Amino acid sequence: MTARRHDPDRRDRIIDAALAVIAEGGVAGTSHRRVADRAGVPLGSMTYHFTSMEELLHESFTRFAERISERFAARLSAVSNPSQLASAIVDLVHSDLVEGPDDLVLTLELYTLAARKPAFRQITHDWMRRSRDVLEQHVDAKTAHKLDALIEGLFIHVSLDATPHGRDVTRDAVLRFLSS
Amino acid sequence: MTARRHDPDRRDRIIDAALAVIAEGGVAGTSHRRVADRAGVPLGSMTYHFTSMEELLHESFTRFAERISERFAARLSAVSNPSQLASAIVDLVHSDLVEGPDDLVLTLELYTLAARKPAFRQITHDWMRRSRDVLEQHVDAKTAHKLDALIEGLFIHVSLDATPHGRDVTRDAVLRFLSS
Repeated sequence: MTARRHDPDRRDRIIDAALAVIAEGGVAGTSHRRVADRAGVPLGSMTYHFTSMEELLHESFTRFAERISERFAARLSAVSNPSQLASAIVDLVHSDLVEGPDDLVLTLELYTLAARKPAFRQITHDWMRRSRDVLEQHVDAKTAHKLDALIEGLFIHVSLDATPHGRDVTRDAVLRFLSS
Repeated sequence: MTARRHDPDRRDRIIDAALAVIAEGGVAGTSHRRVADRAGVPLGSMTYHFTSMEELLHESFTRFAERISERFAARLSAVSNPSQLASAIVDLVHSDLVEGPDDLVLTLELYTLAARKPAFRQITHDWMRRSRDVLEQHVDAKTAHKLDALIEGLFIHVSLDATPHGRDVTRDAVLRFLSS
């Protein structure tokens, strides 16, 4: 932890570089050398900050998931009725949740890693927990749980469909769920 | 196409081997050599059957998606009312849709590839289209579209949560959606 106090920026830069390298070439193509090159730090300093690639991946994806959660919370913070909630979710699904192709790829790289290695499922678990906490400010806990799954599915389908469904479909789906 | 008539098994074996190699080490770690080794075919025969890695990946994931679609259709074929539909979907989400960790990993490897390369989004598009066609035997087209997204989200959440939600949550979510 001494390392953080002495050189906090370097550690952050390595994490940001790791996310950029993962977005570009996937988890499988991520090496200490590539991340060090991208971060502009000596290769030798990598092991000073992260004892293993596993730790670097874990911290990088944790930061990524927290960043998306913050966006999710910010978008839903001003909501005060079901119609506004539906509109905010439409914005999240169709534009806000990922700010570009990198965010989508990183989300799916994390999902794939969590599918392969249970240790990474804590990150996806915590992410879902945070989403539900935010939704619970607007709906009851059971509804929040299911609504979060619906949002996930709508987002995946919009992202991976060659001809994605429109915003009206997402809005209808959410309102239908909220009104039942 | 002559190749198929002369040696149909070899081509199939290569595709099965490719899926096994992808499940094991990811798309990024998949090479002609590894697939040839796994299939037990000469490395030189790979280019005879597939002109590029892109073509091999495309055919392999197409076959994979079709296989999962068949399972989806089979599970929903005997359904004749909303309660049975909900039960069948619960079975799909909690046990049937993937037959093991390999199927989950392959699904997410395909999603990641589709996120990176639009050419692969045709496979995910066709997959969703087939799912909706099956669901449309039981519900109207608009409901089928949204229900398919809900199933996707419930499946992802069950698969990637360190403490997955129970079958009752999935059942409630589906019935709530169908009754509204």
